[in-house]
Amino acid sequence: MLSFESDYTIGAHEKILSRMQEMNMVQQKGYGADEVCESAKEKIRKACACAEAQIHFLVGGTQANAVVTASMLKRYEGVVAARTGHVSVHEAGAIEYTGHKVLEIPGHDGKIDAGELSGYFKTFWEDGNHEHMVFPGLVYISHPTEYGTLYSLKELKAIAEVCRAYGIPLYLDGARLGYGLMSKEADIMLQDIARYCDVFYIGGTKVGALFGEAVVFTKKNMPEHFLTMVKQQGGLLAKGWLLGLQFDTLFTDGLYEKISKNAIDTAELLKEGFRKKGYEFFIASPTNQQFIIMDNETRERLQGKVAYSFWEKYDEKRTVVRFATSWATRKEDVEELCGLI
Amino acid sequence: MLSFESDYTIGAHEKILSRMQEMNMVQQKGYGADEVCESAKEKIRKACACAEAQIHFLVGGTQANAVVTASMLKRYEGVVAARTGHVSVHEAGAIEYTGHKVLEIPGHDGKIDAGELSGYFKTFWEDGNHEHMVFPGLVYISHPTEYGTLYSLKELKAIAEVCRAYGIPLYLDGARLGYGLMSKEADIMLQDIARYCDVFYIGGTKVGALFGEAVVFTKKNMPEHFLTMVKQQGGLLAKGWLLGLQFDTLFTDGLYEKISKNAIDTAELLKEGFRKKGYEFFIASPTNQQFIIMDNETRERLQGKVAYSFWEKYDEKRTVVRFATSWATRKEDVEELCGLI
Amino acid sequence: MLSFESDYTIGAHEKILSRMQEMNMVQQKGYGADEVCESAKEKIRKACACAEAQIHFLVGGTQANAVVTASMLKRYEGVVAARTGHVSVHEAGAIEYTGHKVLEIPGHDGKIDAGELSGYFKTFWEDGNHEHMVFPGLVYISHPTEYGTLYSLKELKAIAEVCRAYGIPLYLDGARLGYGLMSKEADIMLQDIARYCDVFYIGGTKVGALFGEAVVFTKKNMPEHFLTMVKQQGGLLAKGWLLGLQFDTLFTDGLYEKISKNAIDTAELLKEGFRKKGYEFFIASPTNQQFIIMDNETRERLQGKVAYSFWEKYDEKRTVVRFATSWATRKEDVEELCGLI
Amino acid sequence: MLSFESDYTIGAHEKILSRMQEMNMVQQKGYGADEVCESAKEKIRKACACAEAQIHFLVGGTQANAVVTASMLKRYEGVVAARTGHVSVHEAGAIEYTGHKVLEIPGHDGKIDAGELSGYFKTFWEDGNHEHMVFPGLVYISHPTEYGTLYSLKELKAIAEVCRAYGIPLYLDGARLGYGLMSKEADIMLQDIARYCDVFYIGGTKVGALFGEAVVFTKKNMPEHFLTMVKQQGGLLAKGWLLGLQFDTLFTDGLYEKISKNAIDTAELLKEGFRKKGYEFFIASPTNQQFIIMDNETRERLQGKVAYSFWEKYDEKRTVVRFATSWATRKEDVEELCGLI
Repeated sequence: MLSFESDYTIGAHEKILSRMQEMNMVQQKGYGADEVCESAKEKIRKACACAEAQIHFLVGGTQANAVVTASMLKRYEGVVAARTGHVSVHEAGAIEYTGHKVLEIPGHDGKIDAGELSGYFKTFWEDGNHEHMVFPGLVYISHPTEYGTLYSLKELKAIAEVCRAYGIPLYLDGARLGYGLMSKEADIMLQDIARYCDVFYIGGTKVGALFGEAVVFTKKNMPEHFLTMVKQQGGLLAKGWLLGLQFDTLFTDGLYEKISKNAIDTAELLKEGFRKKGYEFFIASPTNQQFIIMDNETRERLQGKVAYSFWEKYDEKRTVVRFATSWATRKEDVEELCGLI
Repeated sequence: MLSFESDYTIGAHEKILSRMQEMNMVQQKGYGADEVCESAKEKIRKACACAEAQIHFLVGGTQANAVVTASMLKRYEGVVAARTGHVSVHEAGAIEYTGHKVLEIPGHDGKIDAGELSGYFKTFWEDGNHEHMVFPGLVYISHPTEYGTLYSLKELKAIAEVCRAYGIPLYLDGARLGYGLMSKEADIMLQDIARYCDVFYIGGTKVGALFGEAVVFTKKNMPEHFLTMVKQQGGLLAKGWLLGLQFDTLFTDGLYEKISKNAIDTAELLKEGFRKKGYEFFIASPTNQQFIIMDNETRERLQGKVAYSFWEKYDEKRTVVRFATSWATRKEDVEELCGLI
Repeated sequence: MLSFESDYTIGAHEKILSRMQEMNMVQQKGYGADEVCESAKEKIRKACACAEAQIHFLVGGTQANAVVTASMLKRYEGVVAARTGHVSVHEAGAIEYTGHKVLEIPGHDGKIDAGELSGYFKTFWEDGNHEHMVFPGLVYISHPTEYGTLYSLKELKAIAEVCRAYGIPLYLDGARLGYGLMSKEADIMLQDIARYCDVFYIGGTKVGALFGEAVVFTKKNMPEHFLTMVKQQGGLLAKGWLLGLQFDTLFTDGLYEKISKNAIDTAELLKEGFRKKGYEFFIASPTNQQFIIMDNETRERLQGKVAYSFWEKYDEKRTVVRFATSWATRKEDVEELCGLI
Repeated sequence: MLSFESDYTIGAHEKILSRMQEMNMVQQKGYGADEVCESAKEKIRKACACAEAQIHFLVGGTQANAVVTASMLKRYEGVVAARTGHVSVHEAGAIEYTGHKVLEIPGHDGKIDAGELSGYFKTFWEDGNHEHMVFPGLVYISHPTEYGTLYSLKELKAIAEVCRAYGIPLYLDGARLGYGLMSKEADIMLQDIARYCDVFYIGGTKVGALFGEAVVFTKKNMPEHFLTMVKQQGGLLAKGWLLGLQFDTLFTDGLYEKISKNAIDTAELLKEGFRKKGYEFFIASPTNQQFIIMDNETRERLQGKVAYSFWEKYDEKRTVVRFATSWATRKEDVEELCGLI
């Protein structure tokens, strides 16, 4: 069966596995205090053009979001996010479990709008009394978003400026960052993210690693005793060097970006295929996730032949479905898919 | 200065104070295990026509909401509420502080819609996989709402039916319940609330008491070890009989409803006054909170003469303001106000 | 039946009630922003000889402990307390509910020892790595303790010095503070407490008020947005002036200390009575709580005649019981008790 | 430098790595719904002789403890553990972070005593009122303990009987379970653990895996919606098959026990070496962790040559240190160590 269900259904880039084999019996310090982690951090700092970046590797995305949010917020603060944000809807309440509210504002194809954010802050801080409300303490954006869309540099800059004007840090969830960076419409580079965001994470799980996300604090703003808080949230990996190893490999010779490009190339091929067959797109996505409006008959016809994700009901006869490519998607599989649809 | 700022700016009905005087030096059991509490509970059971009601008295409204929600929800559940619900916006994140998400759905003049609620449940349970989402575990409504509006019996029944169809308990926040019951448009009686809701609270703080809210579980569904959870949330009053005494007084000879009527009568007078002077109402409220669109010049003119609440900016020149009457508002004061505006 | 069960079984000093009567219909600002609270705070500042004290009134003791602890601690910190401390054992896990550990150290008749505290800090900070442990962030003591015992000035000073050496704030739970101040063995005055502690609370519930505890931050160290955090924990009283009124009354003309003395005088009488009859004391308490070892036959004999508290089993034949006097205990009742035992 | 610092300083058994290589590009369902996980679960069920065991794989030990505890406890309950238990002292308050108290009872060389546990329950449930206390809701033991000691079958049975008598589930932390099972003094087999415990975890991180712990619910008692709660705590691994693969390998042909034996053999060799040189043992450990009392001069002499862990100060001149062997420790390294000490 052809698999376009998600971008985390297979293992890691072969270089990661072979390096794991090499280092398997080498003694390492525990909890990320090893030299491989140090090397990976240094490479990421360079890739971000952010010499002072403080980096910590975590295992997964929800963990990264919960750890970053709960360690950066004060007790009376919440995190502002699009109503469709991953932290808002698809993390089983992991943020609230740490005691913090997700302050939902409108999402536009997954993105928040700088003007609306500014309006939200203005209303909160300037009109009347907010002592009985949750204070905004962090702004969450995802790039690419949960809908595969991208912020333009102008948009990111505008959001960052609003955040700075109100003294609120900006956090970017980069679970699929590689695919955002390599999109044909990419307007933002890694260095821009490091410049405009106060903290972000570079996704490994969905982009070439077995698992792992690199949390990057860009303004010497890693919370004090961050490691203890990671431990407190159950997120500290004993063999932290496994995370270092993967990011060190991905950030050697631009491997992260190179392999990300494959997801984009195959997604473009897939889009072309659907377009030719007259399918309607639910959203215009320039990255590896493609949202197609599919009638239920076609869905039946494809059953057992192609795996993809249910997204939401469109109407009685049609459904929004998601096809995801990845760093490992084979051109042949996309071509076979195009023949089937 | 005339005060229409809120319905909790003065003390309690005189009968409460005189009874407090009487019982002041009588030895009582601690933590609500006294006979006054028992008597008050029995009177409330009768007023609700719900012989099996389990009742616990708490000190304040946010406390009641946080205690009820956090004791009724399972860990992976959240409470569904209108986006404008008190638990959503004006309790400083008290629900999230207990680890639970407020699952916000649209509000219509403060009310939720049975059809939309049903759609929300249907999407959650019937379409796709929700294992990564917060499960709805309680539905929160307020009556009167934060905008002074009321549910009709038909609306309440429809919401209750949706809740039952999906096995989700329904919780009604009655911070201003008396004013809802005595409204000219009141379609719902206390017994209806006891029948259709699984839990609700009868507000004392805003309706004749010094403080206190009576939480009523109507279906033998008070969570096990509720008292211990109240203690854990810091809400257990040592001299619990003070709460019992107040509710026992309010539920003797229909005092609660009698005094509530005054708030409605004075609110009607106030509405009439504003209407005559050509003011526009932000919302049509049949209870004690009236939301007026006032131009900023008028606001300046009234400064120092009348106290009321800022609600929100309407446009550059006008502001939505709230005038609240209460069980203790004097007709003369409303008349004086009508002369001033 | 004679009642020595606890010090919170009756109402408030008559001056409080009559003042409540007077102010009942006076319009007040909500949430403690009123002038009565301001006046009470000023009087407490004077009584503490601490002009810069920041004061907030809360409703009950567990609430005060949970609010102070959770607002002062950083996320990775816990509160150090005696194993027998109220926060450790009798608050249903209210501290843990806020996400923080109670770091238990040995108690000696309810008190902690400066030397042991210092040893604990030394081990934590100086020996090995503590990144995987809960950091001490506050020290909790009670005065009088849960066993009625008192710290000497020397002991308090020593604890405060250890705290300062390690940069950890010291918090004193004064649920029964008046009885500690008026004990014949009292070595510590209110001003000493204000000088040596970073935060403490003056108990009202057990000492003349209907309810209420005055939390005093002595070093300009009230956490930012404290009121919002109180709201978040469900502890913000709408009619905050009720708390102000009570403390304003108690701190006018030394009423708090005057009425506290009665508890001590009657406790001394009671001790004398038990001593004369040959009873053994479980602990030597110089305050209003007396712990007596009573054989079970005597307990049976007293049943229905005297109310007191079960404390713990002593052995198969004997039980530790507690007799508590209060500001309102009548000499005649103690004399009657002495006749019965 | 010789490394005896801990049992998690190197990678995984070679069979795991080669299997990872094999399966790397095979499409797998996400979040543990794959067939490798299913196969691993079946093998563990057989090894435990517990056909109805429900199993979930987690990434690390603190995560396993926090997830199990917080999903099994009711809100008003805490987990009973030895004062020296890992959950009590070395997990940065991960249990308290979920809102639950660790109810500490005495530890004896890391173990709790059935009699003391029974006494604790008896006092809690039978003497007086416990409504203001944290209810015991789970009993935590570790095997081997943090001090390397083991429960005998008789001891485990006695603890289990006490737990059953009071209706409290028993949880065993098996971070180093393999080393306990293969100890020369092992009296307990995996089947015994499955029989007497309600839930336990089989440690992978320290016993042959890269990472991973297998949580086993033995009585059809996996909490409802466990997966959602794992997600909520940030512990759900996208590529869950990586966990399944490791446990499937470890539980094929008894690999888990076979490799565990090496840690025991090398530990025995190491003990013999220290004993011959006249070192004093801090504790008699029959497993892979050895606690030696070492004078500070020797420590200086070994610096740069051998890595081991600081445990605690013994006196001014001596220190307790820990030497850990593992499934991968080489006999030659132990011999070299014995020559150095």
